[in-house]
Amino acid sequence: MSLKDEIDYGVRTIPMISDVKALIFDVFGTVVDWRDLYQPAMEKVRSGGLPFTKLDTLHRMNLDKIAKKYGLSNLPEEALDELNLVWHRLSPWPDSVEGLTMLKSRFIIGTHSNGNITLMVNMAKNAGLPWDVILGAEVVRQYKPVPETYDRCCDALGLAPEQVMMTAAHNKDLAAARARGLKTGFVTRANEYGPDQTTNLKPSEKWDMVAIDFVDLARKMGC
Amino acid sequence: MSLKDEIDYGVRTIPMISDVKALIFDVFGTVVDWRDLYQPAMEKVRSGGLPFTKLDTLHRMNLDKIAKKYGLSNLPEEALDELNLVWHRLSPWPDSVEGLTMLKSRFIIGTHSNGNITLMVNMAKNAGLPWDVILGAEVVRQYKPVPETYDRCCDALGLAPEQVMMTAAHNKDLAAARARGLKTGFVTRANEYGPDQTTNLKPSEKWDMVAIDFVDLARKMGC
Repeated sequence: MSLKDEIDYGVRTIPMISDVKALIFDVFGTVVDWRDLYQPAMEKVRSGGLPFTKLDTLHRMNLDKIAKKYGLSNLPEEALDELNLVWHRLSPWPDSVEGLTMLKSRFIIGTHSNGNITLMVNMAKNAGLPWDVILGAEVVRQYKPVPETYDRCCDALGLAPEQVMMTAAHNKDLAAARARGLKTGFVTRANEYGPDQTTNLKPSEKWDMVAIDFVDLARKMGC
Repeated sequence: MSLKDEIDYGVRTIPMISDVKALIFDVFGTVVDWRDLYQPAMEKVRSGGLPFTKLDTLHRMNLDKIAKKYGLSNLPEEALDELNLVWHRLSPWPDSVEGLTMLKSRFIIGTHSNGNITLMVNMAKNAGLPWDVILGAEVVRQYKPVPETYDRCCDALGLAPEQVMMTAAHNKDLAAARARGLKTGFVTRANEYGPDQTTNLKPSEKWDMVAIDFVDLARKMGC
């Protein structure tokens, strides 16, 4: 290890790595590229107005709402169902598979996404994402950033919060995880919202780890 | 495809494969070698006498019960905790990794075990089991063979029961799955209970698929 390496991540990283056993990842935006209109539907679940409903179903409800506006209302139900599953085929960022594969050699890697289990499994098989475990909303029966979702992910892993690093391209997700005692890893996804992105371009707090992509993150975590 | 192949599995298998999208596996005995004393503890959960309690915890309670008998009661708590995790390090049968890897190329492969998530994840990392998804007791909050456990696994996969094949070395597990509409695959594990095994040496019903091991199963499923 060079002197530069020791300065870069020797002091902060090595003691931390000895604690961390698992990394759990936000997926939409952090692992794969995406487009938006789904927060309001999840808010109905978070607020208790709707019992837990998996994300595929919320997406299908949203699609019904916008079908007329986009000239899709004459499509047969089967075509709308198929269109709805486009979320299962989102493309990974170029570094995602390589970085996750590196991290998997040393840590448990799992999803902590608001996506449901089927969505995560199909996306992983389609994109080659090598998850050890699919956690997240459908397993913990609630949507991020409700605090209990982070607690329940750690419990499912049989680990203390400080042994689990929440990894995301979104400062709010990390702030919610830190409030529950988890370690935090920020990865920049500067084009997530397109070329005019103004949010999440940099860390809003001093997170435990900051990386420019997943390969950089793996290297900094000692893989 | 040779005539023999067509006779072997052409008529029965090919139409079925077009339906099956996922295989879910019993793990203890079917995927890995094991020893027993855990049914009575799970029965307390099944009967409602105990709220859902993950298997690691039930194992630890059992270990406390037998510690005196086996001269372990003077061991420190940490040593008993470590001993309890021997379940996380069970060895796969010789064909398990190869067969599962073949099946993964064509199907979703997941656990439907009474083992908890951590146990399954650690076992998979230790043994190289390439699961797409960890399902089972901790996700569905109940122990096999309660009927709802099979329904909830299919629901988590977003699949109809006839699209999911329960795979096990235990006839009772398959009978419970068939009663809920799942496809069934029997794999012989003739030494699971040691050289004097008398149960589960052959299928008790005409299951949808019968194989001598996981590689044989994968071949018969068209992989």
